[in-house]
Amino acid sequence: MSSPVILAYSGGLDTSFCIPYLKETLGAEIHAVSVDCVGLDAPARAALEAKARHFGADTALVLDGTQALYTDVLRWLIRGDVLRDRTYPLCVGAERFVQADRVAAYARQVGATRIAHGSTGAGNDQVRFDVALRALLPGCEVITPIRDMGLSRSHTTAWLRERGFEVSDSTTRYSINDGIWGTTIGGAETTRPDTALPFEAFPHLQDPASFTRTPQEIVIGFEAGLPVSLDGQALPPLPLLAALRDLGREHGIGRGMHLGDTILGIKGRIGFEAPVATILLAAHRELEKLTLTKAQRLIKDQLGDTYGLMLHEGQFYDPAMRDIEAFLEANQQPVTGSVTLYLGYGQCLPRAASSPYGLMNSAIATYGEEAAGWTGAEARAFCKLVGMSTQIALSVRP
Amino acid sequence: MSSPVILAYSGGLDTSFCIPYLKETLGAEIHAVSVDCVGLDAPARAALEAKARHFGADTALVLDGTQALYTDVLRWLIRGDVLRDRTYPLCVGAERFVQADRVAAYARQVGATRIAHGSTGAGNDQVRFDVALRALLPGCEVITPIRDMGLSRSHTTAWLRERGFEVSDSTTRYSINDGIWGTTIGGAETTRPDTALPFEAFPHLQDPASFTRTPQEIVIGFEAGLPVSLDGQALPPLPLLAALRDLGREHGIGRGMHLGDTILGIKGRIGFEAPVATILLAAHRELEKLTLTKAQRLIKDQLGDTYGLMLHEGQFYDPAMRDIEAFLEANQQPVTGSVTLYLGYGQCLPRAASSPYGLMNSAIATYGEEAAGWTGAEARAFCKLVGMSTQIALSVRP
Amino acid sequence: MSSPVILAYSGGLDTSFCIPYLKETLGAEIHAVSVDCVGLDAPARAALEAKARHFGADTALVLDGTQALYTDVLRWLIRGDVLRDRTYPLCVGAERFVQADRVAAYARQVGATRIAHGSTGAGNDQVRFDVALRALLPGCEVITPIRDMGLSRSHTTAWLRERGFEVSDSTTRYSINDGIWGTTIGGAETTRPDTALPFEAFPHLQDPASFTRTPQEIVIGFEAGLPVSLDGQALPPLPLLAALRDLGREHGIGRGMHLGDTILGIKGRIGFEAPVATILLAAHRELEKLTLTKAQRLIKDQLGDTYGLMLHEGQFYDPAMRDIEAFLEANQQPVTGSVTLYLGYGQCLPRAASSPYGLMNSAIATYGEEAAGWTGAEARAFCKLVGMSTQIALSVRP
Amino acid sequence: MSSPVILAYSGGLDTSFCIPYLKETLGAEIHAVSVDCVGLDAPARAALEAKARHFGADTALVLDGTQALYTDVLRWLIRGDVLRDRTYPLCVGAERFVQADRVAAYARQVGATRIAHGSTGAGNDQVRFDVALRALLPGCEVITPIRDMGLSRSHTTAWLRERGFEVSDSTTRYSINDGIWGTTIGGAETTRPDTALPFEAFPHLQDPASFTRTPQEIVIGFEAGLPVSLDGQALPPLPLLAALRDLGREHGIGRGMHLGDTILGIKGRIGFEAPVATILLAAHRELEKLTLTKAQRLIKDQLGDTYGLMLHEGQFYDPAMRDIEAFLEANQQPVTGSVTLYLGYGQCLPRAASSPYGLMNSAIATYGEEAAGWTGAEARAFCKLVGMSTQIALSVRP
Repeated sequence: MSSPVILAYSGGLDTSFCIPYLKETLGAEIHAVSVDCVGLDAPARAALEAKARHFGADTALVLDGTQALYTDVLRWLIRGDVLRDRTYPLCVGAERFVQADRVAAYARQVGATRIAHGSTGAGNDQVRFDVALRALLPGCEVITPIRDMGLSRSHTTAWLRERGFEVSDSTTRYSINDGIWGTTIGGAETTRPDTALPFEAFPHLQDPASFTRTPQEIVIGFEAGLPVSLDGQALPPLPLLAALRDLGREHGIGRGMHLGDTILGIKGRIGFEAPVATILLAAHRELEKLTLTKAQRLIKDQLGDTYGLMLHEGQFYDPAMRDIEAFLEANQQPVTGSVTLYLGYGQCLPRAASSPYGLMNSAIATYGEEAAGWTGAEARAFCKLVGMSTQIALSVRP
Repeated sequence: MSSPVILAYSGGLDTSFCIPYLKETLGAEIHAVSVDCVGLDAPARAALEAKARHFGADTALVLDGTQALYTDVLRWLIRGDVLRDRTYPLCVGAERFVQADRVAAYARQVGATRIAHGSTGAGNDQVRFDVALRALLPGCEVITPIRDMGLSRSHTTAWLRERGFEVSDSTTRYSINDGIWGTTIGGAETTRPDTALPFEAFPHLQDPASFTRTPQEIVIGFEAGLPVSLDGQALPPLPLLAALRDLGREHGIGRGMHLGDTILGIKGRIGFEAPVATILLAAHRELEKLTLTKAQRLIKDQLGDTYGLMLHEGQFYDPAMRDIEAFLEANQQPVTGSVTLYLGYGQCLPRAASSPYGLMNSAIATYGEEAAGWTGAEARAFCKLVGMSTQIALSVRP
Repeated sequence: MSSPVILAYSGGLDTSFCIPYLKETLGAEIHAVSVDCVGLDAPARAALEAKARHFGADTALVLDGTQALYTDVLRWLIRGDVLRDRTYPLCVGAERFVQADRVAAYARQVGATRIAHGSTGAGNDQVRFDVALRALLPGCEVITPIRDMGLSRSHTTAWLRERGFEVSDSTTRYSINDGIWGTTIGGAETTRPDTALPFEAFPHLQDPASFTRTPQEIVIGFEAGLPVSLDGQALPPLPLLAALRDLGREHGIGRGMHLGDTILGIKGRIGFEAPVATILLAAHRELEKLTLTKAQRLIKDQLGDTYGLMLHEGQFYDPAMRDIEAFLEANQQPVTGSVTLYLGYGQCLPRAASSPYGLMNSAIATYGEEAAGWTGAEARAFCKLVGMSTQIALSVRP
Repeated sequence: MSSPVILAYSGGLDTSFCIPYLKETLGAEIHAVSVDCVGLDAPARAALEAKARHFGADTALVLDGTQALYTDVLRWLIRGDVLRDRTYPLCVGAERFVQADRVAAYARQVGATRIAHGSTGAGNDQVRFDVALRALLPGCEVITPIRDMGLSRSHTTAWLRERGFEVSDSTTRYSINDGIWGTTIGGAETTRPDTALPFEAFPHLQDPASFTRTPQEIVIGFEAGLPVSLDGQALPPLPLLAALRDLGREHGIGRGMHLGDTILGIKGRIGFEAPVATILLAAHRELEKLTLTKAQRLIKDQLGDTYGLMLHEGQFYDPAMRDIEAFLEANQQPVTGSVTLYLGYGQCLPRAASSPYGLMNSAIATYGEEAAGWTGAEARAFCKLVGMSTQIALSVRP
C-alpha cells in the first residue's frame, strides 16, 4: 500500500471529492486535516470532522488556525494597512499560509511526506499551497487531482454522485470562503467583468436597502499599531475582531468587488465582505496619520504594498517578508492611542483620534491658521527656497 | 505712487482684508483677479466682482479657471487615481496652480510685477502660490500681508470693522473652499485631532441620518482614461462632472476627514466632501483593473502617488510632472469602456465593467475554475518554479 | 512531411546541433535565421550562413539586427541608465527581443508557425524567447530540444560527432555572447560563486597588467539623452558605438562580474566586458545630473531600474514598457550637451559637462560658497522649517 | 556677559574666524569643540586644540567621533550599499550628525544653550547641523555668522588678517574634508560643471599616470553585513577601515566626481576620494548578491537609496531612519562570508565570494547549463505562464 496522504480539507466540494478519489486511485490512507481560520465552535468542528469521515477519510482532525492567522499574518496586514490594489484586504490569501504551515507541521509530526490539496489550476491558491508546502516540507510530494485533471465542479459532483455520495446543488453557483479577515464570493457573475454580483450573493452583510441599525460611534484602542480595546474595554485580538465583525455586518460595512491580476497572468474577480478589515484599517490608518512622520508613512505605505503583493502571490515565506516585518515592528511603536469611528449605513468614517505620541501640536502651529513656531518671514523664506529648483529649471527651459 | 498690485482674490475674509490694507499701506492700485474653479454663474461672478470693488479694488475681474482646472490638472488626477494618503483627492491643491497661472498671465498681460495673495504662514497654499508665481513670473514680488504679519481671522475682522466694513460672524468658525473637485472644511474642531467635525459642518452632502434618495445605478463611459459619457449620453467634461456632483451630493457620497503632513512639517486636518472625485475614481480604477496589465497598474500607482505628493507640496511646475503626464498619456490609452456603479446611502460601489481592451478572457481561463490555455501539469510546473527561490533560501537558513 | 521550422540560429554549439537533430527527428525543413546583433561584416555573415548549411539547414539567412537593437532597446537602456543590480548592462537580454522579433517577422512572412531556439532549461534566454515568440506570433509552436531533453554541451557534442560533424574542444569551456552592448562569458569558473574567472577568459579587453595605451580624454555629445557625436564629430549611433567599443577595449574599460537572480529563481553568474555601455552610461549620467531636476532624476532612476528588471526577465513586450519609454522620451529632452571623459588604465571618469539646459547657475548661488539668490536669514529659515517635523517627532518620542 | 557659546570647530578657515568674531561681537566665552571623524593621533589632536586656543577659544577640546561614526552611521551605509545618485558615498554628510550629536551632548553636559557652526548659506551642512541641533537640543540658539552675513573666504581671511592672525593662501583654492569614509574636494573648478578638477587636487590617491603598485587580491570577511576580517585576520572595524584606506590609496581606488542636487535646490559639484567606501561596498554588494533573495535585494536597494537621500538631506534623526535600520538589521543577517577582490590600476573588482548562506546551489541547477531540480517540460510550462499576461495584452491591443 502506498504511503499515507495528508489532505488539507476545507469541507467544500473539491476537497470532499479528493478523499474517495485519492483513496481509490492511490490506494492510500487519507488523513483529512482542516485548519480553522474562521473560529468554529465545537459542534461545527465536530461536523467538519464527521463530513471528512463520511467521505471516507481514515482520520479527520480540525486544527485551530485562528490565533496563528492573527499572530503570523493579520498583525502585519493591520500594521501595513495592506489592501491589494487599494481595495481588497487579502481575506483568503492570508489564510493559506497558516493552513499550509499547520498541515506541513502535522505531516512532519506523523512522518507523512505526501500532502494533497484541492486547488484548481486556474487560481492563486495552488501557488500559495505549493510554494509554502515545498518550502516548509522539503521533498514532500504535492498531490492535486483537481488541478492535474482539470476537473470542474460538475465533474466532481458527478463523480461523487456515481459513488452514492449526496451533493447538494447549492454549492455549485458560488464558492464562498469565510474567515476572520473577511468572506469572499466567487462564481457565476464574477467570472465575467460585465455582470454585477447580486447583493443577495453576499452572505452576511446587511443589505443597504434594508438598513435598520441606528448609526453609532465606537472607539478602538491601539498599542504599537495593534488593536487592544473596544469602547474602552481591553480585549484580546480574536474577541475584538469578532466584536467588530458583528458590528460591521449589522451596519453593512465592508462590501466590495475586486478585479485583479492573478499569479498566473489572467484577471480574476471576486466579491468580498470584509467588515473587520474595513473598520480596523480605517482606524489604524487614522492613528498612523497622527503619530508617524511623513517619511515614516510614505515608506511604510510602499512596504505595505510590497508585503501585500508578495503575500497575495504566494511568497509569504520569502525572507524579505521577515525583513519588512522587522521594519513594521519598529515603525509602529508610536501608533498607540485611540480612534473614534462612525458606523452607519454601510459607511465607516474616522471621526477623531488621540495619542500620547501625536504630532499635531498646536503649541507650534495650527494648520492654515497661526504659527507660534516660526515667523511669517521664515515661512516666506522657506517657500522661496523650496521652489528654487523649479524656478531655475523653468528659467532655462521655459 | 507705487506700481500696481494684482491680488489673487477669493472673496473670503483674508483676501477681502488685503484690498483696503494694501491700498492703505502700499498706496498702490489694487486689481482684484478671481479665478473661478467652481463654475460660477453670471450673477455669482458679478457679485464677486462687486464684492472686490466694495472693498476698494480699483478693478475687479473674475476669470474662468474651470476648463483649465480640468485640462491641466484634473485629467491627470483622474488618470493617476490620485488620492493623498489614499484618502483625500487634493480638492484644494489642484486649484492653486490654475489660479496662480491665470493671475500670473494677467499680470504679464498688464505689465504688473507685484502679486498679492492671502495665504497664512501656517498652511500649504502659501507654498503653492509662491513657488508657482516665482516660476511663472520670474522676478515678481510676492506680497502676503496675512502671512508676513501673522494675522488671524479675528485680527482682519477687527481691522475691517474699524474701517466701517461689515463682516459677518458666520465666516469665522469654518473656512470652506468649494471647487469642481470637491469642498474642504477647516477650522474649529479640525484644529485638534481628537474632536469630531460635526456632520452639519459639511455644507452640501445629504446627511446619512436623513437619506431619502433611492439607490440607483449609473454608467460612466471612458476613453483613454477620461470620462466621456453618463448613462450612455456623451457629455463634455465639465457638465459630466457637474452631473456627478449633483448625484453624489444627493446620495451622500464622498464625505471624509483627512489628517496629513503639511509642507512645513506640521500635521494638518480638514473635512472634505468630494462626490465627483469619489465616484469618478471608483469607476476609473475599476476600468483600469480590467484593461491594464499588472505591471502597468503597479507602476502607475506609484507614479500617481508621486504626482499627488508633488502637486500637494507645490511642485506642480517641476518638469518631472510633465514626464509623469507623458507616462500617463501612454498608459491610459486602453482605459476605454464603461463602468456601472451603485450609488446609495453614502456608498459608491463598482458593479460591472466592460472594455474592448479588457484582459479578462474566459477563452483562456476562468479564475479559480478552468483553464483552456494551459494544462494542470503546466500550472503545477509554474508553481514549482515560482517557489524555487524561497525553497532554496529556506534550505540554507531554516 | 511536417511543416517547416524556423530556427533562431546563433552559430554556436547548441543551435548547430538543432539543425540536424530537428531535421532527423521532425522530418521537417529547417530554415536557419540568424539575427546579427554585433555588426558582422559580409564575410562573417557569409561564413555564418555557410555554417548553418554545413549542418544541414535547408536555407540560411543572416538578418541585420543592429539598427533595431539600438533603436528599439539600447536607446532606452541609455536614457534609463539601466544597469541590472547597478552592475551589469544587460548585454545579452537586450538582444533576445530583437532576435525574437526578427525571427517571428520572418516566420510570418514565409507562413511558418514553428520556431525553434537552442536555449537550455536553466537559463534566462528560454523565457525571453518563449514569451516574445508567443506574444508576437500567437499560436506558434515553440520547439526547444536542448531544454526539453535537458541536453548538456557534451551530449550535443557527442551527438554531432557521431554523425560526422566536427566540433572543436574550444567551445566547451566558455560560452561567449558578443554584441554591440557588450560581451558575456559564462561557464567553468562562473558556475560556482567562489572561483575567479581568469582575466584571460575575457576575450577583447586589454589586461590591466599590460596596459600600454596612454590615457586620453574624449568628448561625447548628446541630444535628448542620446549620443550624437564623438570629439566634436557628428556620428550615427552605430558607428559612434563602434568607436567607443574600440577605445574602451584599448583602455581596458568595462570588465565586470555579475552574480544575480535568474528568472527561474536560482542564482546565475557571468563575466562581462561592456566598454560601450560603461563609457556611454558614465557620460549620460553626468549630463543628466546637470540637466534634470532632482525629482526628474529620482523618478527616472526608479523607472530605469524597473525597465531593466522587466527586460531582463523577458517582459519586454509588456505594454508597461512602452509607458516607461513615453516617460523617458519626455524626461530626456533636456539631456543635451557634451561630456568630457577620462579613459585610462581601465577607468572611465567624467571630467566635465556642459549643456544649454544646465541647472548649475552661479548667478543664483555657488554650492558651499555664496548665494546671490537668497540671504543668510532665508537659508536659516529654510533650515528651521525643513527640520520642523523631526523636531516635533523627537519632542514626543525622545 | 552673554551666555557661553559652544562652537563646532573643524580647524578650517571659517570656524577659525568664528572664534574671534563671536568673541568680539557677542562678548561671550567661546568653547571650541572638535569632533574627530578621521582618526587623528595625539599630536594632531593637540595641534587642533592649540589652533582653537590660538584664535582665542576659552577652551578647546577634541572629542573622538570615529567609533560613533562607524557605529551610528557607516554600519548602515555599508549594509544599505548607500551611494548617492549611485556615485558618491556620502563621505561628508555621514560625519555631520555625529558632530552635531557630540556637540549637543557636550552643550547639555555643560549647560550651554548656544551652539555655533561655520556653515555657509549655500551648502548642505547648514541644514544637517541646524536640523540635528534643534532636534537634539530643543530650544537651543544656533549661531551661524558665515551664513548670516554671507561671508566669503576672502572676507573672513581679510577680517582675520586685520586682527593680526596669519592665514595662508593655500586654504583658499580648495576646501578639503577628510574623514574615515572618504575625502571631498570643493572649490575652484568644481564651482562650474564644465571645468575638470585636476588630478593634482586629489590629495591622497596615487595618480593613474604613475601607478607603481603591483595589482593584488585581498579577501574581506563579513558577518551579518559588516566587515570583520581582512585576508583572514579578524580586525575591529576602525583598524580594518584604516587598512583598506591605505591599500586603496596605493592602488588609486575610489576617485570620483559628483554633481548633484543640494538641499536648497541648486546643483553642487565636488571631487572625492573614497577608497574605503569603494572597496567595502564592492565586496559587500557581491556577498549580498550571493546570499539575499531577489526580493530582499530589490527592497533593500530601494530602502538604501531612501536612507542615503534622507541622510544627505539632513534628516538623519527622522524616526523613519530607525525603521530602515531595523529592516537592514533583519535583512543583513545572512550576509556572512568572504569576498575576494582584485585591486589594481585604480580598479576594484570582485573576483569570488563564498558564504554558508549562499543561494547558488549547483545541486539544484547551474545557470544556463543544467537543472537537476526541474525538467525541461517544467521550465517550458513556467515560460508559457510567465508570459501569459503579455500574450493576452497583445492579443487585444496589437
